[in-house]
Amino acid sequence: MRRTTLKDVGDHVGVSAKTVSNVINGTGWVRDDLKARVREAIDELGYRPNSAARQLRSGRSGMIALAIPDLSQPYFAELASAIVAAAADRSITVLINQTNGQADAERRISDGVGIPVMDGLILSPLALTAGDLADRQDSTPIVLLGEHVGESRFPHVTVENAGAARAATDYLLRSGRRRIAAIGAQATGPRETSELRLAGYRAALREAGIAEDPALIREVIDFRRSDGVQAIDGLLAEGVPFDGVFAFNDLMALGALHALGEAGLRVPEDVAVIGFDDIEEGRYSTPPLTTVAPDKAALGSLALELLLSDSPAAGDTTVPYQIVSRMSA
Amino acid sequence: MRRTTLKDVGDHVGVSAKTVSNVINGTGWVRDDLKARVREAIDELGYRPNSAARQLRSGRSGMIALAIPDLSQPYFAELASAIVAAAADRSITVLINQTNGQADAERRISDGVGIPVMDGLILSPLALTAGDLADRQDSTPIVLLGEHVGESRFPHVTVENAGAARAATDYLLRSGRRRIAAIGAQATGPRETSELRLAGYRAALREAGIAEDPALIREVIDFRRSDGVQAIDGLLAEGVPFDGVFAFNDLMALGALHALGEAGLRVPEDVAVIGFDDIEEGRYSTPPLTTVAPDKAALGSLALELLLSDSPAAGDTTVPYQIVSRMSA
Repeated sequence: MRRTTLKDVGDHVGVSAKTVSNVINGTGWVRDDLKARVREAIDELGYRPNSAARQLRSGRSGMIALAIPDLSQPYFAELASAIVAAAADRSITVLINQTNGQADAERRISDGVGIPVMDGLILSPLALTAGDLADRQDSTPIVLLGEHVGESRFPHVTVENAGAARAATDYLLRSGRRRIAAIGAQATGPRETSELRLAGYRAALREAGIAEDPALIREVIDFRRSDGVQAIDGLLAEGVPFDGVFAFNDLMALGALHALGEAGLRVPEDVAVIGFDDIEEGRYSTPPLTTVAPDKAALGSLALELLLSDSPAAGDTTVPYQIVSRMSA
Repeated sequence: MRRTTLKDVGDHVGVSAKTVSNVINGTGWVRDDLKARVREAIDELGYRPNSAARQLRSGRSGMIALAIPDLSQPYFAELASAIVAAAADRSITVLINQTNGQADAERRISDGVGIPVMDGLILSPLALTAGDLADRQDSTPIVLLGEHVGESRFPHVTVENAGAARAATDYLLRSGRRRIAAIGAQATGPRETSELRLAGYRAALREAGIAEDPALIREVIDFRRSDGVQAIDGLLAEGVPFDGVFAFNDLMALGALHALGEAGLRVPEDVAVIGFDDIEEGRYSTPPLTTVAPDKAALGSLALELLLSDSPAAGDTTVPYQIVSRMSA
């Protein structure tokens, strides 16, 4: 069978081969409905871009790697999905590597060890620091995501953590809460996220003239649902009074909702709860979760733009956030 | 600086270089606590296996590809995590590709187009069928996951869908429910999962001597939380009486819990709800979700074993499931 060509696809839709090429390569400007019809025709006719030829022409493989700690954490899974979507718009294939936040895995992938040649790497490190990356030899472009980075000579996209945490705490204060538990302090491990969000919590209390009560600051091991449950159970067992909860991520906030429900406490009447991340699950919890929503789509597309830019500036780029007000606070 | 060797790592832990090699390559038998200490020492000393040399010796790249429809669906994210974990035990790197269930993306990756040379591919297709794969030319080993496959000349790992769906429906019948809504019928798109689970639902009703009521069988577009909400809203708006819900996946069951709560109905007193998948979220919902738990870890390790086997048998392998009884049914 003759191989389907760009022209076949164009003829099928009634557009030029150049327009089809624009859709495939994410270049030029093509109307959305036309894009959809071209993509349908590509599927229907089984057109396959000749990627080897394309790579030779462009000097690019059309592939990038994305290394994240843990796909079973919904925040990372949704972030990965956003990056894959942004890349698909540019006909770039994303190959995702789960590092489990282990230094060895992060180091290997940042050095390009054990993975094929890619056009670039987006790395969300947990264990590696800027120091570890300072002597990186591999010349593949890299963009870092998240908080566990510090000063770095590489471009870095992150959320304005302290500001967003301050806004979340302030949101509870404005609704009249005065005894706000902070769930997510960390004594060990990679704890930059935790430290920044705790600093935001403290700044909001200070500004409101409320003294900090160490009994309200709850340490966790990880940022999982079970940590949220344990934090609430701990407060209740110790008899620490509280009327608000700022959980440093949505998973822990959802665990807190669960534990509060089990204890017969009403949310938000008895305890108001706010989370951080805006994962889809929080839209369907009982009650639906009020949360800090970082712009994950912007995070994905910014990381990609920086990665593909010819001369990306080193240093931090922050994406905007908003407070999404639902029923839990 | 001298490169860290296997012997350095072994000396640090007090074991032989061979034991360290066994841990790295997932060969031999090493005690779990010793494995953990070797891995810590690898991290601490910054040991890096020389993968190029390893590949030359073994003729393998140490990489496999995993292609799944959508990482923002927790079932797929958890399955990917299970496969990555099983592969890590064998020092295999998994590169994950999100296909969005699009035929073109699935065809490209099954043909090895646009991705680097790998030791194998685990593909969970949504749009492709066995027919589409029948003329696959690429010689890279492939293992298929899930339901959207049919008869195939490739090894295929799946859950016993009809049997599990029958058991779920039967679970509701045994608790005295007689008007059980089935959420997840599909009129279009890749609908094998839906058809098998609907067949199981029907078999259980038949066996209990209960006539099927078409008004209780709710069609959905996708398998997402919002589909579960819409199905419940539809039943209530039409005034269809029901005392049980079998949702064909946990996400829809969680959407159903949400909609039932909004409508002021008590779960399980007024309506018992059972899901399918056992995603982590269901352990923390209000009330916690009763569900069919397919053995995802077994699914991951079986797929990997078949992929790495020298002569894998074509045809289906099913993994076991169990009903996990929580509070919603």
